[in-house]
Amino acid sequence: MGIIVQKYGGSSVATTEKIKRVAKSVIDRKNKGNKLVVVISAMGDTTDELIELAGGITKNPDKRELDALLATGEMISSSLLAMAIKDLGYDAISFNAFQIQLKTNGIYGKSLIEDINVAPIKKALEEDKIVVVAGFQGISDEGDITTLGRGGSDTTAVAIAVKLEAECEIYTDVDGIYNVDPRLYKNAKKINEISYEEMLELSSLGAQVMHSRSVELGQKYNIPIYVGLSCSDIVGTYIKEVESMETKPVTGLAVSDDDVSITLLNIEYDINLLSDIFESIASRKINVDMISQTAPQNGNVNISFTIPKADLNECLEVIGGYVSNRPVIDEDITKFSIVGIGMKTTSGVASRLFKVFKENNIQVKMITTSEIRITCTINRNDKLKAVELVAKEFNL
Amino acid sequence: MGIIVQKYGGSSVATTEKIKRVAKSVIDRKNKGNKLVVVISAMGDTTDELIELAGGITKNPDKRELDALLATGEMISSSLLAMAIKDLGYDAISFNAFQIQLKTNGIYGKSLIEDINVAPIKKALEEDKIVVVAGFQGISDEGDITTLGRGGSDTTAVAIAVKLEAECEIYTDVDGIYNVDPRLYKNAKKINEISYEEMLELSSLGAQVMHSRSVELGQKYNIPIYVGLSCSDIVGTYIKEVESMETKPVTGLAVSDDDVSITLLNIEYDINLLSDIFESIASRKINVDMISQTAPQNGNVNISFTIPKADLNECLEVIGGYVSNRPVIDEDITKFSIVGIGMKTTSGVASRLFKVFKENNIQVKMITTSEIRITCTINRNDKLKAVELVAKEFNL
Repeated sequence: MGIIVQKYGGSSVATTEKIKRVAKSVIDRKNKGNKLVVVISAMGDTTDELIELAGGITKNPDKRELDALLATGEMISSSLLAMAIKDLGYDAISFNAFQIQLKTNGIYGKSLIEDINVAPIKKALEEDKIVVVAGFQGISDEGDITTLGRGGSDTTAVAIAVKLEAECEIYTDVDGIYNVDPRLYKNAKKINEISYEEMLELSSLGAQVMHSRSVELGQKYNIPIYVGLSCSDIVGTYIKEVESMETKPVTGLAVSDDDVSITLLNIEYDINLLSDIFESIASRKINVDMISQTAPQNGNVNISFTIPKADLNECLEVIGGYVSNRPVIDEDITKFSIVGIGMKTTSGVASRLFKVFKENNIQVKMITTSEIRITCTINRNDKLKAVELVAKEFNL
Repeated sequence: MGIIVQKYGGSSVATTEKIKRVAKSVIDRKNKGNKLVVVISAMGDTTDELIELAGGITKNPDKRELDALLATGEMISSSLLAMAIKDLGYDAISFNAFQIQLKTNGIYGKSLIEDINVAPIKKALEEDKIVVVAGFQGISDEGDITTLGRGGSDTTAVAIAVKLEAECEIYTDVDGIYNVDPRLYKNAKKINEISYEEMLELSSLGAQVMHSRSVELGQKYNIPIYVGLSCSDIVGTYIKEVESMETKPVTGLAVSDDDVSITLLNIEYDINLLSDIFESIASRKINVDMISQTAPQNGNVNISFTIPKADLNECLEVIGGYVSNRPVIDEDITKFSIVGIGMKTTSGVASRLFKVFKENNIQVKMITTSEIRITCTINRNDKLKAVELVAKEFNL
């Protein structure tokens, strides 16, 4: 009898009515002959409401206490879902991070999962219970609550699936992975199967469907992940090892408005200084994404890089310790990416992309590439135009 | 340097503004040279809101899951208070029941505390931190969350004070213990010092200021408990070992509307049957308070008893297993009690009480007494009249 780990996102459990619907859906799946573990996010806007509550106390909430606060959102939804399942006559039990010793590396707000004690989960499954797990949270070696970052419940689900050698199903408010965000491009098409590699590029680049660490984890342990609409029969997308036969060079397109670019003007070209700056930024767990640098002139360079908007103040504080010039901040950028395993074997994708941009007066600011991805930053104003043009160019 | 365990009730932390005020008050106390442990209740109506949320799922929430749900209220307030203290420049740390292994006997909704691992609290105090503890919650041997019942945070505070050999201060929205509920009797007077014994009778009888188990615990380990208004200089009441010199036979008066009386009519007078019924009720952890029985007639008796209103449905279910007659339920009763250590040495208190009732047409239904207390049930309609008359009679 196969074990299935399901995850339901916040919008799927936004109200008690919706929680009851999820309970029915979980029971239906169990009745098809499976053992069920259900990872759940906080109800609807609960996390934002808790952040707002902390905002009523202080502008700079202590990170340990903020994590302890935020973790309550998933504790609430998980106990409610277990209640709802029991109310329908099926046995269920909820677990929080303490109860399954979901151990993390202890970084507040963006912890990585290190281990999970699945013994209580296995015991409950043997007792024919449906297991409900509070997502998004873990505990450090010191027993502090640490959260996994936005979308962390996806990672909770995949990590449990790994430990139980189970299948994993992520239920959300979209019916699968699209080659372009349907909110930005009305002709976007659903992808039936996508490789971990492509999904990883798409999710880390702002496709906003899956938490990228969950995809990495699925890839590492080869756990297929299904992504689909909750409480629905519409078939979604499978993320798995795909031997792509298609000739299309570009599988998907992703844009993100969550980054900000910082430019340091005329700083001394000193490789030690630069590495010190980036090491200091990294030590604050701020992810620097794109970096570009001009050629040195008179011993000075300009250097630009992007970071998540949320980390801007902290990053500027770090930079202030090294550079006296005021950095130039550009918040009105969109990170624009095209992704496809086909790029490995198809040349000329980059030139087609930049030709489209050039012909339509879309200014490209920074560029980075990987084997299966091209990313550039453009002005926020050009976003919709760029999506439309590039989607057509690559027949998405 | 003395350790003080303070407890702040839900109304003292109902808003983020109030939490910030409590943070200041706690810091003031620390600055007087004390080490501080602060036990906190859920913000304002949070517990009721969580119960309402559960009510949106089912009329009969699973008890394990309900406790897991309710415990989040105190986790929220404790992390917010720790944040607020840190924001004022003082180090602080919050602990939930898992983090201090606050072990209970595992009864959902009304657990008794069995032990607390105060090592993390002591360590934090040594590091000069203000410790904030989520009240009301504990964990069973199986690691399930169990709550201590309404007002359980008082007991959390006294239990921690016992383990730390600390003083205990309970801060609430009343400025001390009154001899009559001031909302019912405008001439009520504040008591400066009251014995554990008297307070116990008063709190278990509906004085609604202190959780009775917290007073029992204070009495058992001789921990003086101060009860006063939060964030205020008004002097409250000390609950401690009092050598009472006063001649007043009655110290206080308490009324409670939280009980319901059940009468079993014409049931077979069979001592085995009766003990079976009351054992079954007790096995459900329903507290039967007053019991009265008529003399047997034709082998049958009438028997009346009171239980908390909240347990009525469960109790009727138990009774249904033994008795076919429909029990008579009276929900419109008030439990009326007078308490005083002086009763031990003063006779005629009961006759003075019942004379007052008789002369004013107040019907007395059931009566129980202890060495220092007389309790009876009267019609709810007579409550205010009875309070006024009896308070005057005994000069309260």
